[in-house]
Amino acid sequence: MKKNLRVSIFGGTGYTGVELIRLLLSHPYVEIYQITSRKDKGKRVDEIYPSFRGILDNLFVSPEDADLKNVDLVFFATPNGIAMNYADDLISKGKKVIDLAADFRIKDKSVWEKWYGMRHKSPNLIDEAVYGLPEINRDSIKKSQLIANPGCYPTAIQLALIPLLEKKLINPSNIIADAKSGISGAGKNPELKLLMSEAEEDFKAYGIGGHRHLPEIEENLTKVCGENVTLTFVPHLVPMVRGIFATLYVECIKDFKAQDIFNSFYVNEPFVDIMNADVCPNTKSVRASNFCRISFHKEENSNRLIIFSVIDNLMKGAAGQAIQNMNIMMDYPETSGISHIPINP
Amino acid sequence: MKKNLRVSIFGGTGYTGVELIRLLLSHPYVEIYQITSRKDKGKRVDEIYPSFRGILDNLFVSPEDADLKNVDLVFFATPNGIAMNYADDLISKGKKVIDLAADFRIKDKSVWEKWYGMRHKSPNLIDEAVYGLPEINRDSIKKSQLIANPGCYPTAIQLALIPLLEKKLINPSNIIADAKSGISGAGKNPELKLLMSEAEEDFKAYGIGGHRHLPEIEENLTKVCGENVTLTFVPHLVPMVRGIFATLYVECIKDFKAQDIFNSFYVNEPFVDIMNADVCPNTKSVRASNFCRISFHKEENSNRLIIFSVIDNLMKGAAGQAIQNMNIMMDYPETSGISHIPINP
Amino acid sequence: MKKNLRVSIFGGTGYTGVELIRLLLSHPYVEIYQITSRKDKGKRVDEIYPSFRGILDNLFVSPEDADLKNVDLVFFATPNGIAMNYADDLISKGKKVIDLAADFRIKDKSVWEKWYGMRHKSPNLIDEAVYGLPEINRDSIKKSQLIANPGCYPTAIQLALIPLLEKKLINPSNIIADAKSGISGAGKNPELKLLMSEAEEDFKAYGIGGHRHLPEIEENLTKVCGENVTLTFVPHLVPMVRGIFATLYVECIKDFKAQDIFNSFYVNEPFVDIMNADVCPNTKSVRASNFCRISFHKEENSNRLIIFSVIDNLMKGAAGQAIQNMNIMMDYPETSGISHIPINP
Amino acid sequence: MKKNLRVSIFGGTGYTGVELIRLLLSHPYVEIYQITSRKDKGKRVDEIYPSFRGILDNLFVSPEDADLKNVDLVFFATPNGIAMNYADDLISKGKKVIDLAADFRIKDKSVWEKWYGMRHKSPNLIDEAVYGLPEINRDSIKKSQLIANPGCYPTAIQLALIPLLEKKLINPSNIIADAKSGISGAGKNPELKLLMSEAEEDFKAYGIGGHRHLPEIEENLTKVCGENVTLTFVPHLVPMVRGIFATLYVECIKDFKAQDIFNSFYVNEPFVDIMNADVCPNTKSVRASNFCRISFHKEENSNRLIIFSVIDNLMKGAAGQAIQNMNIMMDYPETSGISHIPINP
Repeated sequence: MKKNLRVSIFGGTGYTGVELIRLLLSHPYVEIYQITSRKDKGKRVDEIYPSFRGILDNLFVSPEDADLKNVDLVFFATPNGIAMNYADDLISKGKKVIDLAADFRIKDKSVWEKWYGMRHKSPNLIDEAVYGLPEINRDSIKKSQLIANPGCYPTAIQLALIPLLEKKLINPSNIIADAKSGISGAGKNPELKLLMSEAEEDFKAYGIGGHRHLPEIEENLTKVCGENVTLTFVPHLVPMVRGIFATLYVECIKDFKAQDIFNSFYVNEPFVDIMNADVCPNTKSVRASNFCRISFHKEENSNRLIIFSVIDNLMKGAAGQAIQNMNIMMDYPETSGISHIPINP
Repeated sequence: MKKNLRVSIFGGTGYTGVELIRLLLSHPYVEIYQITSRKDKGKRVDEIYPSFRGILDNLFVSPEDADLKNVDLVFFATPNGIAMNYADDLISKGKKVIDLAADFRIKDKSVWEKWYGMRHKSPNLIDEAVYGLPEINRDSIKKSQLIANPGCYPTAIQLALIPLLEKKLINPSNIIADAKSGISGAGKNPELKLLMSEAEEDFKAYGIGGHRHLPEIEENLTKVCGENVTLTFVPHLVPMVRGIFATLYVECIKDFKAQDIFNSFYVNEPFVDIMNADVCPNTKSVRASNFCRISFHKEENSNRLIIFSVIDNLMKGAAGQAIQNMNIMMDYPETSGISHIPINP
Repeated sequence: MKKNLRVSIFGGTGYTGVELIRLLLSHPYVEIYQITSRKDKGKRVDEIYPSFRGILDNLFVSPEDADLKNVDLVFFATPNGIAMNYADDLISKGKKVIDLAADFRIKDKSVWEKWYGMRHKSPNLIDEAVYGLPEINRDSIKKSQLIANPGCYPTAIQLALIPLLEKKLINPSNIIADAKSGISGAGKNPELKLLMSEAEEDFKAYGIGGHRHLPEIEENLTKVCGENVTLTFVPHLVPMVRGIFATLYVECIKDFKAQDIFNSFYVNEPFVDIMNADVCPNTKSVRASNFCRISFHKEENSNRLIIFSVIDNLMKGAAGQAIQNMNIMMDYPETSGISHIPINP
Repeated sequence: MKKNLRVSIFGGTGYTGVELIRLLLSHPYVEIYQITSRKDKGKRVDEIYPSFRGILDNLFVSPEDADLKNVDLVFFATPNGIAMNYADDLISKGKKVIDLAADFRIKDKSVWEKWYGMRHKSPNLIDEAVYGLPEINRDSIKKSQLIANPGCYPTAIQLALIPLLEKKLINPSNIIADAKSGISGAGKNPELKLLMSEAEEDFKAYGIGGHRHLPEIEENLTKVCGENVTLTFVPHLVPMVRGIFATLYVECIKDFKAQDIFNSFYVNEPFVDIMNADVCPNTKSVRASNFCRISFHKEENSNRLIIFSVIDNLMKGAAGQAIQNMNIMMDYPETSGISHIPINP
């Protein structure tokens, strides 16, 4: 177990970046070696984020000036299409890489290129990359050098479906995911639609024509299930900052006790909480924590099962899960640095 | 056309009551004759609601002291189970009654009594009452003395489904209504779960075991459709004050152009706005107005249609629709007093 | 009284522009002749603002393409520095102009140029322009062709101070205005600090080194008072969309009854509501309305008087007041088109 | 240094109680021995607060059933007037007591009884109690058995004023504290005015006639200053959950550099952050942390100094400070269990 792991954070000014910094500053085995930002290079991090005043002395460095030799692990909290430019070099130097963006989330290169609208720069690494959902891929993560950290919607949705799909208990081609996200999921981007004057006291669906998280979910669920899984996925924007709530409608094709299935699947998982049937989880119960809470309701007189899954999009949906992956890769206790209790109220 | 219609508002301190007052104060043909409140009797209305300062001089009167002789029409913005105690007397005196609560929304008395947990006091009036959804029942409303004003969820959901169900274009037993409501829908009640400290920055489902609006929806859709309609209905609470957003998942059983169906069904409706396919409505676009906006998305390679429907729960979902019903009953122009343009931002 | 007044709105995509459109659409004597937007020219207004769907057919026109010949009155809801380029031409053609920005708010040209960082393009018109605070300048407004519509903070603050300053009841050089504004006051600008993820659940002061509304307030109060008035003015940003709350701390230099002074000063004003001492106004009680509510508290054992003043920044603080000015200029009833009752909840 | 300190929390269902639980669960030296709640006795804590699911097994016990023998320290997160019934007994048994309510905050019993409207039950302990503002009373806290934990407003306001008052740099009878608080400061009480439908998108002052925190502030500042200090204190309610922002207006009576005074006064304080002049703090920069950030602005051409002070009302304003006091009393490192980095966004 390596103490004083030196990590770099690429893209330290976005919301997943700043959350990584917050978590890593309290991590018992990690030293934040450098934080990059093209836009804010040369500025103190705590000038941009006064929440770090008195805690962090770093300046943002330009990505070009990043010292990639003396680090052990690099987090990419950058936009899509950045990590793939650096990964080859880092991997070949023996560094570990965790990409919080989408560059390595999809194994089918042509699907990826279609949805992300660019050519993939490191196609050779796609197969090597491990999809970093610890509850499913813990063993592969442990041995991997390159982690594709899952998207926020995919985390909430897959954790709710996998126990059922893996056992072929539900129809894999009749699944609806009506998902709702707080606005921080849209990132720290100066867009009109993200203004408080626009978004507060408003609720809407978006990405109706197709959301990039759909192929990620379908590909991974298909792999787990062993047969083709397709979803109807409708994301909505909630006038709040943090949190994802997924309401899933599935068709049971066998008789089973959902409570038992979920309980036994996640019995040893430190971050997945299975609640009793009909007790609905709420996003605030996981706010600023790495927990996922799941509950469900079986309709009487029908074969429909409704599943509820909540996470904090910046924690289990991004930075928290990235650190969970790091802990597994480094053989640290899996909850190190991410055992925060949800903030309430 | 009777000018200076004298109306009473029973239950003037709740959110539907205060919205009725706001709307009726600007209505060209109405005089607010009295406003009742058991809790606040004797107080000035503008002491409880300073938004009416300088506009309204009324005191709240106790319901017992209400003068029911000299009014023409009574709105009940009271809890469930109140209007049914007064309706018989009022109807027999030739008064008109609009109940914004649920007393007359369901024709099947035993269903009503089961869901509302009380005995119905005016079973003789249940059949006479007209379900006040003007887009469907305009002619009956015109002739009626007693209107059951629909619930907020039922309004948003039924307006989105009726054009399809009426033409038997979708499977009536495979409908999912994933509905989201602002918190004013829960009323002005001093409950912990409604506190801002609890509800802000939180999203959750509720009423999973069954919501009272479900039998109302099913009964009315069944009537319109001519065959049995059943729904999966999951309501959610959004951290905002006003607005309902319904996401509906239905199974097409015929080939049809949804755009044409919706456009032609609502072509003459002053308050229903059919948007183009794939343009998603948002709750803010109807805030503080009587509009309902509907859009939809047809999935490729599947027979699933997704429909979106938004209203302001206190307007088209309550007080606005009640006044629309009054206008129809009184042969006033249907938009009188409720032609407000949505507030934005 | 001219019916069918043709008005143009320059700058129809900002929040004061969209509020002007909303109000003018229901105004009994006005026809919206054209709406300009450089950024959105050629697009339908209701495409950018779906709240106008079904109500407004206009396209945005480029300011260059605006027909200035056939209009009677032009509102400038543009950034500072635009109206001054058009005013001369419009005035000379006999048109009326109401500028909702700051171009003509300050009589001292050098002060204006210092605070707004640009040369004034129509210095000849500065003296002619009337400061459009109807409660003070109604007679001049009636005769004017060019109105400088006051800022939002200045409206709330001046209405609270003028009755006392005019009678020389308070020390004009010991006034503190601790003012709080909803975020729509910052406009519809794609800036990081205005994102919901940044602004929600946050409270802060800003403009500490000096806010442009300060010289506007001081110059006008000095004029009213007849002696030099100076203020300490600290604006704060509130995590809400609409509303201004000003808390004013003044030093009484004479014995007087504040209630009487305020009551008699505003006795005939349709939009100023003087509340009883010690009953505090709240911003929600004026939301989406043109009212200003004022209350106060006299400290025991000291000569300090605390005054509270609330307005809706987009209504009495911008578009509502602009239309009030238009009504006065055109000899329409002063409340035409702006008698909206506050929205609650 | 005693490891495994056994603590009881009286009043575990309010917001300061639940925050104490959250913090103590991660405290390295503390065992939560019992949590009382009259209302929820017998229920699991994590049933009322699902944020503790998987972390905390305790049931709420009735205060009558609390085992006061085997605990080392008791926190009272109860309403005012409770701790004073238990303190005598606990103190005599050698236990330590920290009251987060007001029972021992004011030394002048008659002042206390007037403001809190009840007779004091333990007048003998009033003198013994130490006012738990560590930055001022650290030495006394260390030796004390009974701590009166300061109110939230008093903490923010006093930390901003003490460095100046202690050196007699400002006029002690010309101080204005315009303070703003998030709504969690009003507690978890089912009151109409605290509903989200009421409080969201609203801003108001309250307690104009006098707030209980005023005598607490004045008494303590008078003690520090050595001469009579009086304040104008106007609290306001902000539509957010957490955070206090105090804007202070003071009159300088000497020439001094505020930056130097503040910097040197707080140079060794772990939780007080002095920012540069004219850089305004914001409440989000301290959210869910124990920090207080202070900045200031000196007016040109006047002797007025404006000071800004922000805290999280549930942390430095309540539970965080209570644990800071406990750490000092127990000789633990002062930041143990309360070194959380602010949550952002």
